Order: sequence, then structure tokens, then C-alpha cells
Amino acid sequence: MNLRKGSPINVLLIIHIISIILLFEGLFMLLALAIAFYDREPDTIQFAMAIATTLGTSAIMYLISWKRRHQEPGTRESLVIVTIGWLFLAFFGCLPYVFTQAIPSFVDAYFESMSGFTTTGSSILTDIEALPRSILFWRSETHWIGGMGIIVLVVAIMPLLKMYGSQLFNLEASVVVEEKFSTKIRYVARNIWLIYVGLTVIETFLLRLGGMNLFDSICHSFATVATGGFSTKNTSITDYSPYIQYVIMLFMLLSGINFVLHVLTLQGKFKRVIKNNELRFYLKIVGFIGALLSLILFFSKDISFEKAFRDSFFQVISVITATGFATDDYLLWPNQGIMLIVLIMLIGACAGSTGGGVKVIRHYINWQVIKRSVRQTISPNAVCNVKYNNRLLTYKQVSAVSTFILLYYGLVVIGTMSMVGLGNDWATSFGSVVTTMGGIGPGFGLVGPASNFSMLSDVSKLLLSFTMLLGRLEIFPVLTLFTPWFWRT
Amino acid sequence: MNLRKGSPINVLLIIHIISIILLFEGLFMLLALAIAFYDREPDTIQFAMAIATTLGTSAIMYLISWKRRHQEPGTRESLVIVTIGWLFLAFFGCLPYVFTQAIPSFVDAYFESMSGFTTTGSSILTDIEALPRSILFWRSETHWIGGMGIIVLVVAIMPLLKMYGSQLFNLEASVVVEEKFSTKIRYVARNIWLIYVGLTVIETFLLRLGGMNLFDSICHSFATVATGGFSTKNTSITDYSPYIQYVIMLFMLLSGINFVLHVLTLQGKFKRVIKNNELRFYLKIVGFIGALLSLILFFSKDISFEKAFRDSFFQVISVITATGFATDDYLLWPNQGIMLIVLIMLIGACAGSTGGGVKVIRHYINWQVIKRSVRQTISPNAVCNVKYNNRLLTYKQVSAVSTFILLYYGLVVIGTMSMVGLGNDWATSFGSVVTTMGGIGPGFGLVGPASNFSMLSDVSKLLLSFTMLLGRLEIFPVLTLFTPWFWRT
Repeated sequence: MNLRKGSPINVLLIIHIISIILLFEGLFMLLALAIAFYDREPDTIQFAMAIATTLGTSAIMYLISWKRRHQEPGTRESLVIVTIGWLFLAFFGCLPYVFTQAIPSFVDAYFESMSGFTTTGSSILTDIEALPRSILFWRSETHWIGGMGIIVLVVAIMPLLKMYGSQLFNLEASVVVEEKFSTKIRYVARNIWLIYVGLTVIETFLLRLGGMNLFDSICHSFATVATGGFSTKNTSITDYSPYIQYVIMLFMLLSGINFVLHVLTLQGKFKRVIKNNELRFYLKIVGFIGALLSLILFFSKDISFEKAFRDSFFQVISVITATGFATDDYLLWPNQGIMLIVLIMLIGACAGSTGGGVKVIRHYINWQVIKRSVRQTISPNAVCNVKYNNRLLTYKQVSAVSTFILLYYGLVVIGTMSMVGLGNDWATSFGSVVTTMGGIGPGFGLVGPASNFSMLSDVSKLLLSFTMLLGRLEIFPVLTLFTPWFWRT
Repeated sequence: MNLRKGSPINVLLIIHIISIILLFEGLFMLLALAIAFYDREPDTIQFAMAIATTLGTSAIMYLISWKRRHQEPGTRESLVIVTIGWLFLAFFGCLPYVFTQAIPSFVDAYFESMSGFTTTGSSILTDIEALPRSILFWRSETHWIGGMGIIVLVVAIMPLLKMYGSQLFNLEASVVVEEKFSTKIRYVARNIWLIYVGLTVIETFLLRLGGMNLFDSICHSFATVATGGFSTKNTSITDYSPYIQYVIMLFMLLSGINFVLHVLTLQGKFKRVIKNNELRFYLKIVGFIGALLSLILFFSKDISFEKAFRDSFFQVISVITATGFATDDYLLWPNQGIMLIVLIMLIGACAGSTGGGVKVIRHYINWQVIKRSVRQTISPNAVCNVKYNNRLLTYKQVSAVSTFILLYYGLVVIGTMSMVGLGNDWATSFGSVVTTMGGIGPGFGLVGPASNFSMLSDVSKLLLSFTMLLGRLEIFPVLTLFTPWFWRT
């Protein structure tokens, strides 16, 4: 991929690549259509129309851009493809909802679709169980497609583009194989794809063992491995058995880990995995906050310790991995408990996973930098190095990390202000922005785990669809399109 | 000042310097005692006892440490002196309140005293006007002493210590004189002292012109120039004439500017002042948010545009400079207006002023860094420099700025969590921590501009006294004392 600074943007090439993305989307839709046929759903024709529209658009776009099929995108084309690609996925992905009248309002359907493809899991549905199985399956599929998309993006595309700050997330990948960059990327990407499918299959099997039916098992596995959070039940995971809750907990935890580490595990390189700084920090955070929360719940509610432990760790893991499944309504917890949920919403999962948010690696590096700054205050001339997995980080790398965190939280503040400006209350504004930016799902105020996003205004829903995209794509690809530098040829 | 890494801390030298600080404090108390005599206040003897205790302690400490009077403190001694010095100032400063029973509770008195010396202006008093004039005068004096202390600290002590990130604030000072460092510091410090006194005298004169009595004029000038915020009236500045409100507004704005720029103005170097990046950013923020807020107030309340303009700009300037005077209760404004107040609470005044918070210069640099990161996303190989006043900043300098901001906001989150943990509600917890860390005064929830901090628990008050100190001393000097590295000899 060569940098073509100053040259006009290759629009046809962008159209070409998006046509291929839409083709895949249409093929995935066919799986859901099969269920509609099998169940003889009354709206099968409408569903088929949605697929025809998607595949038809894809075909037209493909034909228009036929000539460019052998070209490679430059930096700016890639940035446009990533952002516009997700917008197209969400737009065509909402057609089944609209055409079958499962979700009659276009804005609602678009919100639900974007929430799916960004693996957020925030929903506008008030009665999930009333929907036909084909729609529910498609809804869960959007998570799975989105999760795969984000892994390809973070592990393969961003490092190739030398995306600002993305080198960091490639530190793991570089130890997997010692070959040249593009070979390495292909090797890692293929293995990650296998792990993604493998985790989904194993979880489905384990959920079946616990008595969940096949349909629900697949849907919940899609939502877990993609850290999405859409359930096929109105009460999310609340009414399932402790066994099922523990299984989902385990797979959420695994899906929040850098997938490159799963590759290393399969290669038998356990020592590298165990010594990984981000993994250790991630597990420490989950363990510490989960334990603290268990105590808070145990002493404030009339429940057994096992239940306090399970509710606490389920919610902590669900929120830190940005899945958003729920087994309890944390808004009914004491303030101290809610505070801990706010805190982990601001943390996020590991880089190179399907999870969202700021990411643990950035907090780990930031923590090292803060320690250094304190030491340098005591001894101004002391040399203090910031390390990640025993590699020295430069001031430039460290600065990229701090800048990302500051930009992320700054956008949370601006987003919250915009929601307040639109007339929403404080808790709902903050809660909805934090949860959509982080790709989590439930928020605070009116949009807690026991509620949904349906009562918000259309403008608020569109704003939140935008913050979902912003958070999911790690801010920069989206932000660049709004700057004059991008369009200056 | 030489670095004595590894050597034991020179405790006697610390005692020596603190004895001198207490001597000055005692002398300032004598001014308030003069008023007690003049007014023939019944508690004059008790006030005198408080002074005797302060001066007596000072004398004993001075004699104990007599031998060390010619030594110079190293880095670690200086860090201890700064932190412990402020704690001693606050402790002895609260004795007049306790001895005269003006504030019977020790914790309340300590909170009020720390709030004074950190120029915060948060108060636990429910009826200010019921207090004798000597106590009110001493309360205003604590602001003035604290304001002077912070200027000496930031302009002279921190750069000498090469304090982490403090080089930035010396960028202005270095253009004032082209001499060697210690001479320069002495020259700048003397001039700043003159400006500090000059601003106080001129404001007192202008307030007198507006019909305010001499006593109130002096007290309000002390509180303005130090950006403190203690008023002698229960309703703060609300009941004064528009003329007086505009005068105070102007002097708050001036006191929020880097005092080195005032020195440059007196030297006739207007061009340098006008071109200063931080000053321009500061004025833009005040102008933009003030204008926006004027419109919000004008359209939501039944008031004239002049009143909307005055209320809006008064509150914006009062909050951004961290003064905390009020002419209106912003908690009664529409949510959109309150949101803007939250935003400017997170900004802070200019570096090298008496104001608090994160400081405009850091936001300015952070904004440049974010712009660079977006440009580097578009063109990964582009060379983009971050500049301040036409000087190139290194990645190391830039990283120090980001780290400070992240640490500051991180501590706001931890502080808020602690307040929630102590049983306070969300708005009060966040509002009280933001306002005390930033040295502003009024917060949100139960501690708004029309209320006070008296209803909080003692533990909450002590926690907030600590966050005042943390924010006022720019975090690092206080934080270092809590690390093992500091105490390792």
C-alpha cells in the first residue's frame, strides 16, 4: 500500500471494495433467510427483498468499478473504506428490519443495525421475544460479522497503514512469526479467523450441554465471541442457569483478550502468554474489581456469597469486555457498586480483541508513564524507562497512547454535552455516550440494563449511532474525514 | 540547589524554613488583630492567643533548627517543605477560628483555612455576616497569602527544582530578562510581587468608587487577586451593583493571566503579550463560552440581554479563573448552561497565575498534539511540529503535558469514587471534587453556589481538604511523598 499524498481520492476503487463487503453481507443474510423459510415466516418475501436490494446494489457497484479491481488502496482510500464501509454495512443491514416491519422506524432500525455491526449491543427493542427467529438470527449475525471486521481492521489493516499509534498493537503479532510483514499479517489473520470460529463452536456446544436450545446457543455465542451483547431473551442472561452464566462469563473473558495471544497459546508458547503485560493487567483489574464488588453486593443485598460472586464477576466481565449481557440490573445496586461499573466502562478490553473502549494496554502504558513522572519529580535527572513486554517505548509512542486516551475521554465529554443539549438528563446522557463509545450496550439513567434506548429522540439515536462508530473504529479513521487536511489534494 | 539523591532528608532544615513561613503567617494575623482591637470585639484575647501560639511555635522551631539557617534545601527537602508548609499554614491559620469559637468544630475550621490558603473559596459557613470583622479579614487574608505563595512556588521554586513538566511555565519568564537563571527568577519574582500588590490596591480603589465600604473592598480585592472567592456577604456578589460586578469580573480575568505577561506589559513589550498562545486561547474560551451561555440564559430566562451577558460572563470568568464568586445560582440554569459550567471547571486558568485547575497552556498544547495525531493518521510520514509561542516542543515535553492532564482527571475520578464510597450522592461527589481540585469554590448537587459544604461529614471534609492541596500544588509534590521511591535513602 503506497502513500499517495496529494493525489485525488480513487473513488471507483472505494466503490469496488465496498461492493465486495456488501456481497459478503448479502451472503450472510441468506443464512437468516433459510430460517425464515424453515419456520414459514409470513414476512419471508420481504426478507428476501432486503437481500435482493443488498446483492443488487453490490452487483451494480461491482460493475461500475470493474476496471479498478487490481488496484490497491492508499492511506486515504483505506480510511474512507473503513468508515464508509461500516456505514454501508449498517445501512443495508437494517433493511431486513425495515422491510419485514420488525422495526418499522428507519432510525430505530439503523440504530439497531449499527449497534450490531459495531458489536455494541445497545437495543431499541422493547419486546425482543416477539420477533421472528430469522430477524433475531440476523441481529446476532451482525455482531459476528462486525467482530470479525474489527479484528481484520486492527490486526491487519491499521498496522499496514501505519495508523497513528497502532504499532503498539502489533508488538504481540511480531513475536508470532519472524517473517516479512505481509506474510506475517496473513499468517496471523488466518489463525485468528480459526480461533474466532473455534470459540464460537465450542461455546455453542457448551451452552447446548447446559440445556439451551441450538438456536439460542448459536445466537448467544455469536454475541459473546464478538463481545456484542444482543440476547434473544428480554431478560438477557438473567433467567438462565448458573452453569450457562459461568460458560458465557468464561467466553466473554476469553473474547476480551488479544487474539494474537490465543494464536501463541495454540503454538504452545505459554510462557510468552503468561508474561504478557496487558493480559496480566486485564486479569488483575477483573479480579480486583470483581472481588470488591462481590463484597459490596454480599453485604448490601440479602443473597448468598455464590450469587454475589457470580453477579459481580458476570457484570464486571460483561462490561470490561464491552459485551453488555446482564444477569442483574446494576442500577439497583448501591452507589458504590454503580461507581465501579462506571470505572470499568472507562477501561475497555484488550487491544486486538473484539472488545471496545480505551483498551487495557493503553492504561497499562499510561500507568507506567505516571510512575515515571513521579520518579522524575523526585530525581529530575533520573533515567526512567517505560517498557511493554520488555521492549523500551519511545516518548513518541508513549505520547500517542496519552493522546488517544485524552481524545477518547474528550469525545465522551463532548458527546455527553451534546446529549444534554438535546434535552436528555445528565445520567442518561453520560451513560449512553460512555456505553456506545465503548461498545458496551447498557448505560445509566433511562438506558440501564433493564431498559432500552427506544424512548430517546431520533436525533439522539443518530448521535449515538455515530459515537458507536467513532469508538469502534478507534476514533482516528472517522475523525480524519472531518478535517480539511484530508480533502486537500 | 543541589540534588542529594540517596542522602537522608535534612529534617532540621525543613523545620527551619517552616518556622519562617509561620513567622510571616503570625505577622499577617496581627493585621486582623488590629481590627479586633479597633472594633473592641469580645474575643480579642482569644484571637491574640491564636497568634501567640503561632509565633511561639515558630520561635521554638526556629531555635531548634538555628544551626541549619545557612543551608539550602535539595529536591526532596523542597517537596516536603512545599506540602508540609501548606499543611502548617492551614493548621495554624484555623486557630483564630477555633480559639474565638467563630467556627467551633476543628474539622470545619481546618477545611475553611485550607480552602483559604489554597485559594479555593469553598466554605462551611452558613451565616458569613454573623462573624466579627477581624475573623472575616483573616479569612480573606488567607487567600491573599495563599495566592502569593503559589506564585512564588510556580514561578520560582518549581523551575529551580526542574519539577516534572514545569519547564513549560518558564517559557515566558525566559523572555523577560536575558540573564542567568537565579538573577532572572529574582527579577521576575520582585516584579510579580509588585503587580500582585498593585492589582489589589487598584481594585480596592475602584470598588470604593462604586460605593463598597473600605473593609469589604479590601476583603473582596484580596479574594479576587488571589482568585480565592471568599466574600464577606452571604449572597457573594449578587446584591452589589452592576458596576461593582464588572470591576470584579475584570480583575478576576486579569488575575487568571500568567503574571509574567503583566511584567511584560509593564515593560512595554505589548507585541509579545498579544502574540502569547496561552493568553489568546484563554480569551477565546472565555469569549466563546460566555457568548454561548449569554444566548442560553437570554432565551431561557425572562431577563434583559445585559443581565444575561453579565451573569453569563461573570460566572464563566469566576469559574475558569477558579475564583468562585457568584452573582447567580447556576444550578437554577437550564441543563445546557450547567453543562458549560462543568466544562470550564475542567479547564482552569493560565499557568503562572493565582488560578487553579489543569491550566489553559496544557489544553492548548494538548489541542496541538491532537491536531498532529490526526494529520499523521492521514499522512503517516508527515513531519508535524507542535509549537508553543513559536518554540518547538519535544515529544518529552508534550508527554509531560498529557500525563499531567490524565493524572489530574484520573484523580478527579478516584476522588469522586471515594466521595460516593463515603455515602455522598453522585452530583455532590463529582461537583465537590472537581471544584476543590480546581480551587474554584462552589460545586454541584448539595454544594452549589447558593449553598455551602457544612452538611458534609467530617471525613468528606478532610478528603476535600486533601484534594484542595493536591490541585493547588499541581499534584506531584504531594503525590511523591506517598511513594516508596521518596523515602528510600
